[in-house]
Amino acid sequence: MTALRSFQSFLYQHIPLVAQMKMELLDLTTQELLAAAPLAPNINDKSTVFGGSSAALMTICGWSLIKLQLESHGIENDVVIHRAETTWKQAQYDDLIIKAMTIDDVDWYEVAATLKSKNRAKKITIKCQVLNQKQEICSCMSANYVVLKLNS
Amino acid sequence: MTALRSFQSFLYQHIPLVAQMKMELLDLTTQELLAAAPLAPNINDKSTVFGGSSAALMTICGWSLIKLQLESHGIENDVVIHRAETTWKQAQYDDLIIKAMTIDDVDWYEVAATLKSKNRAKKITIKCQVLNQKQEICSCMSANYVVLKLNS
Repeated sequence: MTALRSFQSFLYQHIPLVAQMKMELLDLTTQELLAAAPLAPNINDKSTVFGGSSAALMTICGWSLIKLQLESHGIENDVVIHRAETTWKQAQYDDLIIKAMTIDDVDWYEVAATLKSKNRAKKITIKCQVLNQKQEICSCMSANYVVLKLNS
Repeated sequence: MTALRSFQSFLYQHIPLVAQMKMELLDLTTQELLAAAPLAPNINDKSTVFGGSSAALMTICGWSLIKLQLESHGIENDVVIHRAETTWKQAQYDDLIIKAMTIDDVDWYEVAATLKSKNRAKKITIKCQVLNQKQEICSCMSANYVVLKLNS
């Protein structure tokens, strides 16, 4: 869990909005990142979750999943979000659970090897969800990220 | 400009993330809302604009354009975002200009009349952009909002 705590500190230090949203990284597998955020800093005028918070939290969770996997393979290339389709399905009245998942299981060894040997940009699609405390999906996002070439 | 200042105070009071992003509402016509936000609270680890901030700012600007127009016609119905397609085109290194625009000119009198007489939900599509200080589009969003029926 140390890698997650350290990555969260990095996010809080360099992306002030992530600190404001009080996002906490909870668990990481090779294909999924789990996070949480309290309602209070992410609330709107109707006392439900602000749609902009959901979008921002999913954006950063998808990015973090890729960065964490690449870093564990010694890859320091920049990762940027390129496109996303987001759907807000229902109002959410409680604390947020955020998940970022690969679409098909990604072979990170292969991704790392390709980036190292060919130094090409690489597109990765991540599916993100914000769930309420009943584990119902309140919003979801399919997002394309690009791992940039070194020095690009 | 008083309506804009008062609406901005409402946003800051009820949606803490909007206050954190220091979004300022600058100008409003029947078809467009113009806003701005400084880079500092919306920065990321590469000293460019955090993609989650862009998404959240566009989300709230589109919503605000609809709410402001409806309020000027005496409509208090809730407005929620339902779907959005977002594209981040290029990295942004300076303060943000945010625009929310109707797709085809919306006849707000007609929208208001329909909502009042038929009490049906109404879908409105808004195009949003985040521009840099050279007026280049750095990210954009096409977002569907729904004006809910009263008591829905």
